[in-house]
Amino acid sequence: MPNNRKSPPFFTPPDSPFLVPCDGTFLVKDAPTGPGKNAPGAAECREQLDRLTDRLDEQQRVLYAQTQYAVLCIFQAMDAAGKDSTIRAVLRGLNPAGFQVFSFQAPSVEEYAHDFLWRATLRLPERGRIGIFNRSYYEEVLIARVHPEFLVRQRLPGPPDESLWERRFESIQDYEKHLVRNGTVILKFWLNVSKQEQRRRFLGRLNKQKKHWKFSEADIAERAHWDTYMQAYERCLNKTSTSWAPWYAIPADNKPYMRLAVAQILTQALKRLDLHYPTLTSEQKARLVASRKRLKEES
Amino acid sequence: MPNNRKSPPFFTPPDSPFLVPCDGTFLVKDAPTGPGKNAPGAAECREQLDRLTDRLDEQQRVLYAQTQYAVLCIFQAMDAAGKDSTIRAVLRGLNPAGFQVFSFQAPSVEEYAHDFLWRATLRLPERGRIGIFNRSYYEEVLIARVHPEFLVRQRLPGPPDESLWERRFESIQDYEKHLVRNGTVILKFWLNVSKQEQRRRFLGRLNKQKKHWKFSEADIAERAHWDTYMQAYERCLNKTSTSWAPWYAIPADNKPYMRLAVAQILTQALKRLDLHYPTLTSEQKARLVASRKRLKEES
Repeated sequence: MPNNRKSPPFFTPPDSPFLVPCDGTFLVKDAPTGPGKNAPGAAECREQLDRLTDRLDEQQRVLYAQTQYAVLCIFQAMDAAGKDSTIRAVLRGLNPAGFQVFSFQAPSVEEYAHDFLWRATLRLPERGRIGIFNRSYYEEVLIARVHPEFLVRQRLPGPPDESLWERRFESIQDYEKHLVRNGTVILKFWLNVSKQEQRRRFLGRLNKQKKHWKFSEADIAERAHWDTYMQAYERCLNKTSTSWAPWYAIPADNKPYMRLAVAQILTQALKRLDLHYPTLTSEQKARLVASRKRLKEES
Repeated sequence: MPNNRKSPPFFTPPDSPFLVPCDGTFLVKDAPTGPGKNAPGAAECREQLDRLTDRLDEQQRVLYAQTQYAVLCIFQAMDAAGKDSTIRAVLRGLNPAGFQVFSFQAPSVEEYAHDFLWRATLRLPERGRIGIFNRSYYEEVLIARVHPEFLVRQRLPGPPDESLWERRFESIQDYEKHLVRNGTVILKFWLNVSKQEQRRRFLGRLNKQKKHWKFSEADIAERAHWDTYMQAYERCLNKTSTSWAPWYAIPADNKPYMRLAVAQILTQALKRLDLHYPTLTSEQKARLVASRKRLKEES
């Protein structure tokens, strides 16, 4: 990897016990999947989240008015880790015009006809907006690594050897660096659910008729590849957690705790930007005074 | 610049006297703007171009059938250098479904709300197609460098100091490397017209009523910045001519010669790909035989 992991001047990753270090030392086996001993209880987590939602709402108004920065939050996880419900819990209450959620499914024929970052670029948030990717181009180094047979449809030049993944990691690093340089804050969340908790949630889906639609037999098949997925996540997070686009490995076995952790990181990241309502020059202010006068004098 | 200027395995730039070297030694003042002494005359150039167009047509059919590689040709030049007429001359006669020309104008509000590569990504050619960019993201290190006041609308984080251009060059290098890795051949043409020839062509536009629509007073204003533009081109070509996405500085004072030079490089680049019609497995062939039989037996 190139030695240019330094941040653009305007952004440093929010501190968090869940920040994946940029030095390649992250181990899935040591990453917690649940809250620690002194963690707040569920009720306390919900209360704190409510307060953070209010703060986020105010931050987003300024982000929108300033139209200088965009925010991109990427969510990756095993099935049933809680991506959808976390996105809902953290963003409800915000102005819907200020954010956009995009869920990536299997690529279309048109998307396969382009490089693997193309379809993500189309959905990038504009300046002033928060964009949420529910799954993302990271599938190309996760599911594609567990199932390399999916690569055939991508019609890549050259055989898909081991170096393919290194090139993809480099492409992703470069891509994110470019976006950050140009004003997009990138936060990446891996919702780290344990295998036991996934089993419990799958059984929950099978036991409740209202949740049947969320269950697919394919999910069980993917579960059989658990260890290979964990290996792919570990490599991916180690290669692509950078000071300009950090990964956070969020314990996902306890939902209220997980949601609070995500909201904390997001509000902290926004706090670190120089967010402010646009300031007017004295000439612009004088014109406001004139406009006020004209409106008052209108007969 | 990182020391990773090596090509992806499938592509090496076509040889040409006009290839801009990757070592930063290109000098505008030494680059020819017209044909050399032993160059073919206009009639000979046109004849050769006709033959190349036939070859390009055949190459494009295979490119389209194979659907593995995309080709991106970027044209940059001063006004009246002949971008439009070169694109017309080289591509007429090809199947229009196999290529797409996109002319970049001033960015829209939506485009300004994204990073400077975003709008180009939307128009990238799909596998199997030739995409032509008439102007491109290179304007962001050319016209934006001559007129830094244009940067204000881009609402970049941080002040636009000298390092901005270095970061843009790096972003462009990384972007193109990613595209090439994923199967897009990139050829970049700077149509190098002399200041005297531009004057002659502008006068030609002013003297012919049919060409008046092509003239704008702004073109004269830009002409006043000629030396600054040449400096910007020289820096740009030196920083972004790479083994994976080479620049060619094409003499543009003689149109038939310029068009032939572009066509030669394009057909050579396609010749270097392992273009072939898709091959069928013996099982697929057996099914073709079966299909033929069913059609024949149809009553």
